[in-house]
Amino acid sequence: MSVALSPPLRVGVAGLGRAFSLMLPTFLGDVRLQLVAACDTRETARAQFARDFDAPTYDSIEGLVADSNVEVVYIASPHQFHAEHTRLAAAHGKHVLVEKPMALSLEACDAMIDACRQAGVHLLVGHCHSFDAPYLAAREEVSSGRLGAVRMIQAMNYTDYLLRPRRPEELMTSEGGGAVFSQAAHQVDIVRLLAGSRATRLRAAVGNWDPARPTEGAYSALLWFENGAYASLSYNGYGHFDSDEWMDWTGEMGQTKDPSAYGSARRKLDTVASAQEEAELKAKSTYGGPSYQPPKPAGPEQNRSWYQHFGPIIVSLDQGDLRPMPHGIQVYGHYTKDWIPLPQPTVPRAEVIDELIGAVRNGVPPLHDGVWAKATLEICIAMLNSDSQGQDVLLVHQGS
Amino acid sequence: MSVALSPPLRVGVAGLGRAFSLMLPTFLGDVRLQLVAACDTRETARAQFARDFDAPTYDSIEGLVADSNVEVVYIASPHQFHAEHTRLAAAHGKHVLVEKPMALSLEACDAMIDACRQAGVHLLVGHCHSFDAPYLAAREEVSSGRLGAVRMIQAMNYTDYLLRPRRPEELMTSEGGGAVFSQAAHQVDIVRLLAGSRATRLRAAVGNWDPARPTEGAYSALLWFENGAYASLSYNGYGHFDSDEWMDWTGEMGQTKDPSAYGSARRKLDTVASAQEEAELKAKSTYGGPSYQPPKPAGPEQNRSWYQHFGPIIVSLDQGDLRPMPHGIQVYGHYTKDWIPLPQPTVPRAEVIDELIGAVRNGVPPLHDGVWAKATLEICIAMLNSDSQGQDVLLVHQGS
Ligand SMILES: NC(=O)c1ccc[n+]([C@@H]2O[C@H](COP(=O)([O-])OP(=O)(O)OC[C@H]3O[C@@H](n4cnc5c(N)ncnc54)[C@H](O)[C@@H]3O)[C@@H](O)[C@H]2O)c1
Ligand SMILES: NC(=O)c1ccc[n+]([C@@H]2O[C@H](COP(=O)([O-])OP(=O)(O)OC[C@H]3O[C@@H](n4cnc5c(N)ncnc54)[C@H](O)[C@@H]3O)[C@@H](O)[C@H]2O)c1
Repeated sequence: MSVALSPPLRVGVAGLGRAFSLMLPTFLGDVRLQLVAACDTRETARAQFARDFDAPTYDSIEGLVADSNVEVVYIASPHQFHAEHTRLAAAHGKHVLVEKPMALSLEACDAMIDACRQAGVHLLVGHCHSFDAPYLAAREEVSSGRLGAVRMIQAMNYTDYLLRPRRPEELMTSEGGGAVFSQAAHQVDIVRLLAGSRATRLRAAVGNWDPARPTEGAYSALLWFENGAYASLSYNGYGHFDSDEWMDWTGEMGQTKDPSAYGSARRKLDTVASAQEEAELKAKSTYGGPSYQPPKPAGPEQNRSWYQHFGPIIVSLDQGDLRPMPHGIQVYGHYTKDWIPLPQPTVPRAEVIDELIGAVRNGVPPLHDGVWAKATLEICIAMLNSDSQGQDVLLVHQGS
Repeated sequence: MSVALSPPLRVGVAGLGRAFSLMLPTFLGDVRLQLVAACDTRETARAQFARDFDAPTYDSIEGLVADSNVEVVYIASPHQFHAEHTRLAAAHGKHVLVEKPMALSLEACDAMIDACRQAGVHLLVGHCHSFDAPYLAAREEVSSGRLGAVRMIQAMNYTDYLLRPRRPEELMTSEGGGAVFSQAAHQVDIVRLLAGSRATRLRAAVGNWDPARPTEGAYSALLWFENGAYASLSYNGYGHFDSDEWMDWTGEMGQTKDPSAYGSARRKLDTVASAQEEAELKAKSTYGGPSYQPPKPAGPEQNRSWYQHFGPIIVSLDQGDLRPMPHGIQVYGHYTKDWIPLPQPTVPRAEVIDELIGAVRNGVPPLHDGVWAKATLEICIAMLNSDSQGQDVLLVHQGS
């Protein structure tokens, strides 16, 4: 592969928490990059990083962005730091890969986009599930025109999102907590990708019904597109029905899921007695924590994971429906059902690195840039506003 | 059973087409009623009825409603005749069971309700899938309060509805054609039943994208309820993805479905060359037609059908989700998944007869009365209006 001839991308990590531990198998498995530095406010995380990578660590972003060996900063700190960490990275001439959601306001997105433009660095937002190969392949199928125009998209996801251990601000909507900021960011991104057109308006209802976790755990929305397509999106993170049943019992991370583990997120959450204990529980099982589990090396082919996903999605076009699955795409044509298999991935989320390398090394404009992710954030914020105002919200930041 | 002591209900049928042939197994299997007369404009249908039931037939509704032996008229004529046939039946003192949709306008519903009230006869609207036992059982579970308040409902159904052979007016929205009048009538009714509260507003997008069949084949809607619950409804009748996959491959009629029969509705439709040929194809395979198949007698228990259904539905409450299935209800609680089995039905749609007998013989006010069905029609019409007006439609006829 020609890309192997370029020197590996030198990545510095800002925030060694759960997002980082989910990206770690990618960083470890993909020879096109190398982790060269990290910062975190947690000492134990820094210590583990120093041990694992024999690389410098910093207790604040300022140290990391000043590290001359770092080419790209992967910003996986909590939402509220994304804007400031991006600004600092750009100011030091570093490319930025920032976790979803990009930021908490459209103004912050603009500032991030401007800072990266002025510094002449690339800004990518991800990992987001719209990077998952089955969605990218479905988008190719849509844009090939073989099945005619796209008309209707149905996306839904029922998970235990709201029951996973959280930092306090993750349960406060005003701080960017809840399913609309954290989960719609994935689903809206995928639906926009598949619709292949600018969104024009949105109507939504949000659900916030557990007084112990008083932020959005659910939503349903209708989204309209310039090309006439519409989408219905639903999410429920209250930990009851699990829609992975409709994804061949493959979990969000592409892993084979055990249906008999039902209720485990709630049983784990029951062990904490306060918000502080809960935040500690989250930190404990993340990178550097005492109960952290390092990623298992990829086993024989049968045990390897498939592509990651964000729940059942049906894309309806004139001549057929597409259903992206973890291991391929089911095409429901006029007369036959056809299966488009995808090769089993060797490195999870390699699609993120493809886009990052493409941008930084080969100057290919990334799909998931700041303008793209700001448009997704506009839709997420519109969900909250549509619910509270009781009407459609017009979308005006959907790119040119 | 005490009801067996009452004399059987004497039912006269207006319209011996597809709806009638779908109800026929019920009429044949349920000893609580007896078919005593029928009317149809098709001579072959009248002839078969006369042979099968040794009973008088009429070529118009006037004859049927004047038949003194008829206690209840089952009105299964095309939509556009429901109002007038109901008026005539009531004027002759007959109880009415009228097919869904009740009528094509709210004014017509009012006239039907008034006519039946003035005549002192019962008015029931059905069969509608909200009669199906799993929904009635799920509603009991909701109203028991055991799982707390109902919060969110997700209902979807992907079928080949639009490809089945049709009369011309069934493909004209202005005449009551399309999925919004014929299919939302089921789905909205079920969702209202499960929400257990008055609907307050609706936002919808409708899909009408096959120029050869220019009526609604699809829709997505958000529906809000007085108790704070919201529902997301989606329907797609374009014959591609089949959501019966998510109902254990049990079809709408409760039958075991063969996934390999994919595309059969379209292949059949391909054999017709004109609207007239299509209408003839419909008539041919219905009661009295040359390719009509009489219902098979119920076989051994293993081959019997399960309950009918209208696609995957998830009801989310505070303490768990309910998923009505053809053979029971899956309850997704906080810690465990529990299965509430339902006894296998012996007579399909016996629930309709339960309610009819309850009303006519025992004076139990029916759930599916005119006021109830008018509220459902208001929501269906609101779907069309919300789509064309691009905004929420407030609902004001949802009962007292
Ligand atoms: N794409 C995905 O699959 C995915 C999954 C989880 C989280 N995320 C995103 O990643 C971000 C982090 O979420 P998380 O769940 O990993 O949280 P986390 O709490 O597990 O991790 C955050 C890490 O950042 C560190 N940190 C906090 N403040 C810092 C600062 N000022 N400077 C440097 N480090 C700091 C914390 O100590 C912690 O290690 C969020 O924006 C979230 O939306 C994405
Ligand atoms: N609940 C269900 O499952 C279900 C299923 C199918 C149809 N339906 C409803 O039943 C009604 C009929 O639809 P269908 O699909 O059976 O249509 P159809 O064309 O198969 O049957 C209608 C029958 O009425 C007869 N007819 C027409 N005009 C008449 C008149 N003026 N007087 C007496 N008979 C007349 C026709 O000859 C035909 O036999 C519709 O309102 C439809 O929504 C309900």
